[in-house]
Parts: sequence; C-alpha cells; structure tokens
Amino acid sequence: MPAEGGRGLPRLTRATASLTQEIRVLDAAGEERTIRIPDERPLTVYVDRRELVTLMTLGQYPEWLVLGYLLNQRLLPDLRQVDSVTVDWSVDAAAVRTRAGAAGSKALRTRAVRPVVNTGCAQGTMFAGQMADLGTMRLPAVDVARIDRATLLAALERMREQPSVHREAGSVHGTALFHGSELLFFVEDVGRHNAVDTVAGWMAMHAVDGGDKLLLTTGRLTSEMVIKAARMGVPIVVSRNGITAMGHSLAERLGMTLVGRAAGRRFLCYTGASRFDQGPLGAAPQAPPLR
Amino acid sequence: MPAEGGRGLPRLTRATASLTQEIRVLDAAGEERTIRIPDERPLTVYVDRRELVTLMTLGQYPEWLVLGYLLNQRLLPDLRQVDSVTVDWSVDAAAVRTRAGAAGSKALRTRAVRPVVNTGCAQGTMFAGQMADLGTMRLPAVDVARIDRATLLAALERMREQPSVHREAGSVHGTALFHGSELLFFVEDVGRHNAVDTVAGWMAMHAVDGGDKLLLTTGRLTSEMVIKAARMGVPIVVSRNGITAMGHSLAERLGMTLVGRAAGRRFLCYTGASRFDQGPLGAAPQAPPLR
Repeated sequence: MPAEGGRGLPRLTRATASLTQEIRVLDAAGEERTIRIPDERPLTVYVDRRELVTLMTLGQYPEWLVLGYLLNQRLLPDLRQVDSVTVDWSVDAAAVRTRAGAAGSKALRTRAVRPVVNTGCAQGTMFAGQMADLGTMRLPAVDVARIDRATLLAALERMREQPSVHREAGSVHGTALFHGSELLFFVEDVGRHNAVDTVAGWMAMHAVDGGDKLLLTTGRLTSEMVIKAARMGVPIVVSRNGITAMGHSLAERLGMTLVGRAAGRRFLCYTGASRFDQGPLGAAPQAPPLR
Repeated sequence: MPAEGGRGLPRLTRATASLTQEIRVLDAAGEERTIRIPDERPLTVYVDRRELVTLMTLGQYPEWLVLGYLLNQRLLPDLRQVDSVTVDWSVDAAAVRTRAGAAGSKALRTRAVRPVVNTGCAQGTMFAGQMADLGTMRLPAVDVARIDRATLLAALERMREQPSVHREAGSVHGTALFHGSELLFFVEDVGRHNAVDTVAGWMAMHAVDGGDKLLLTTGRLTSEMVIKAARMGVPIVVSRNGITAMGHSLAERLGMTLVGRAAGRRFLCYTGASRFDQGPLGAAPQAPPLR
C-alpha cells in the first residue's frame, strides 16, 4: 500500500529496483571482460485504470517520475488531483488514482484523441498545445533570479563529485536541482526527459519552488527541455551538452538563462546572460545571487 | 509537386532547409563569441489529411524521415501503400497520401486509440504491440551476415572523416549505413531516433536490403534502437556510445550483433560476437565477410 503523503499529498509507494547489471563483453583485443550496464524497464502508467503510456526507465524514483510526467505533460493541473501512485515492478505498472476519477482531468479525457508531438531527442511525447501555452509561463524576473560565475562553477564541481550510475555503467542521463551550489536532488534515467520529469515530481511532492533554483542536466538543451524547465518554473538551466536552435529561441522568448558546454571551468552562456552577477559576465548585481 | 518515384515508388518532394545557424554567446571568460548551432523545426505529419504526429527534426531529408517513421512504427506495411509525400517547410508540414486512403492502413485506423509506448531516450514513440511482434523479426543467420575487425575499424574511420553538422554545430546524432566499410548513406538529426528512421526511409526508397549491412550510430543502444534495426533487417549495429540492459537482452533474443564504445581502434562487442571473422574476435570464417 502507498505510504501516507500527508498535507493532502498523494500517497506513494517506494518501489525499488536494481539500477545496473553485469554483462560479459569482448573488447577490441578479443579479451573477455565484465562490465556493468544500466537497467532499463518499461513502466506502464494507468490513470484510474486507464492505460496512458509506457515509459522506458532506469527505475530510480518511479513514483516521482510518473507524477512529474503527468505534470510536465499538463495531464494533471496539480498534485491535489492525485490520491495515490502505486508502482509494482512485478508487473511493470504504475497505478495512478485521482481523487475525482479520470473525469476530473480534462486533459486526460482529451488526450487519447489528440496527436502526439514528438520532440527532444527527438521523439519524446508532448501533447498538442504544449507550445501554445508558452505565453502563460512566467519565470522570475532577471533582477530577481540571478547566478554568478563562482556559484555556477561550484555547482558543476558538486555534480562531478556526485556518485552516479553513469560513472558505473554509462548510458544514462543525470539531472540535478541546485539552490546556488547546494545540490537538492539528483536523479538519473535512460532518458534525459525522464530525469527532468522525475525532478518535477520530486519538487511537487516537496513543495519546492523552482524560481530560485538551477537545473543541471547532462542532456542537450532542446525545445522540450526548455519547455519542461519553464513549466517547473526554473529560470536557469545548465547542460554539459549543447543546444538546438529551437531550445535557444524558446529560452529567449521565456527569458530563461541557458548555459551549455559546461565542463571543468568552461561554459557557454547561450541566453539570459543578464542573470549573471559580477565576474567577467558583467551585469552589476541587482539582487542577492542564488546562494 | 512531388517528383515521380518510379517503379511504383511514392512521389516525394525534395524539401530543403538550413541545417545550422549562428548565435552570439558569452564564454566563461566573458568573451563574446559567435558559434553555430543546429536548426530544429517541427514537422507535422498528416496521413490522408489526418494529423498523425509532429516530429522535431533537423530537416535534412524530411521525406525519407516521414517514410521511415511510418515504416518503423509499423503504421504502413510497405511503401506501395504510399502515393506521395509532400513536405512544405513554409507550413512545417508533411502530407502523406496513401493509395488506398487511411482506410488502407489498419495500423493507422487503430493508432489513435492505442496508448503510446515511450522508449529510447526515453520518451520516443512506439505504438503498443511493438514488442509483441519481436518474434516475427528474422535477421540473417550468424554464418551469413558477418563482419571482421578490420572492416569495422575502417567503417569507424570512414565515419570520422565524414563532414557533419555535429562537427560544425554539435548537438545532433548521426547514423550511417555501411556495406562493409563503404558508407552508403549518412544522416544527422536532433534525435537518434529520427536519424535511424531516415535511414529506413532511404533504404525503402532505394530497395536496399539490410541483411548484409552495418548500421553505425552515435546514439546509445537502447531497446528502441535495437527494435528499429531489427525492423530494418540490419544484423550488426555499432555505436560510439553505450548500451542499456534492455537493448542488450533484445539483441541477444534477435541474434543481433551489438558493438559499442567504438572510438579510435577500441570497441566493445556486447552481443553476437560469433558474427566476427578472424582476428582476436575468433570464430573461424563460415562465409565471406561483408566487404
């Protein structure tokens, strides 16, 4: 049975699963070696007994993934609609029970007849109209949500120190939520979209506001990543990877600060450089930076 | 108007679009720089006037992408069902006209009411039942479709020499189809799934059989990549990147040879090492290798 969520929060199971496994391989020299690879498993999401979607996931925090997916896809307006999320790996299923029943979610009612918009890399699912409501997204003003070079480099350093499935087995994307250089939450998944959705689920369950946070991802800054971050209210997104033209233009429209190619002490600020305090990135402080 | 396809092939437009664009960025030293980033644009696919899906794509070969997507998603049994594909970037749309009309495609009729299976990285779309028909996929026997170390390394070298959007602007995945070490077709896209689907569309339009080919991708070897390659009949898939547990187990079930972490002269053979001739990877030749 799912545990009490409290404060009217959904009750969630805490399903656990193995994250890596050993396989035998041959290297180029013909030597047999044992390596670890990340697990990948289907998680079929049922909302009020209705099959919605199957996510291929590492399975680190499946309940938060499901909640974050529903929220980021705008299939649920907020967590109060959800009574419980029950994940059972013995059947690879996540059962979401809403308080009102499926009828309570207009988005869910209309979902099945709407075409799917595939984005990101490059066939993620976003339902029609995702782009349409961009105008309704509001990020904290540039003079409120700020960052400085030292804090950014400290966050990158903290991310490097983080023990990870990637370090052990590769082939997963990691996403971390920072307050200044303090790592609040870190998750990995076979896909960067799942990792970001899991952060969204964690934020919702812990009533964490994104306005003064920094999202650090190993994935590319594509249109979908920018939209997800905006939906989570996070004004500053940093990636070890690069950017696409649509991620760039959306971030400019949203006033989001995008930083990419972040490695060691190097990075590129693609958009929203005016959120930077001090240092070579100029822009005199207009408010205390996020530390 | 789409050009004659000939031999009963679909008529395709040859829509072109810019692949990269310049943006101004600030580096960590605060220096302003100009870099190129890959374009990313929505392509909404209509089949017989019915909206099916929107793919976010680089837009290199949109007609082949659409055909490959329909084939790999099993939404169309084969190209003979398709009369024409008309891509018009002025409206970001691809109009697919089938010969029989939508009624001619059972998959398309049932599509809207089936849940979407999201996989790969990690929310690509595969429609329900994709996994179910794995048993029906047949790859050439191990003693027929073979590879040797020298050919593999030559193919990797050829891939490195290939001019690419990635080299110019980063943030795209590349996929190439090889016969031995001869590069037959190369495409890049913002997503590894689109790139592989585009190869499938090119193969179908050119009646190229996958049985004696090698697929080289920069993307990870996840479950969906293995399923796509199997659907294209390609028995040997090589990646610069790693593998997930489900990609590994599916490849073993399908008798597919998976090689990953391929860089320079190094690589790991995850599955199907028995397809290798000579060299340290053993297995005495049982048939002429793919050269």
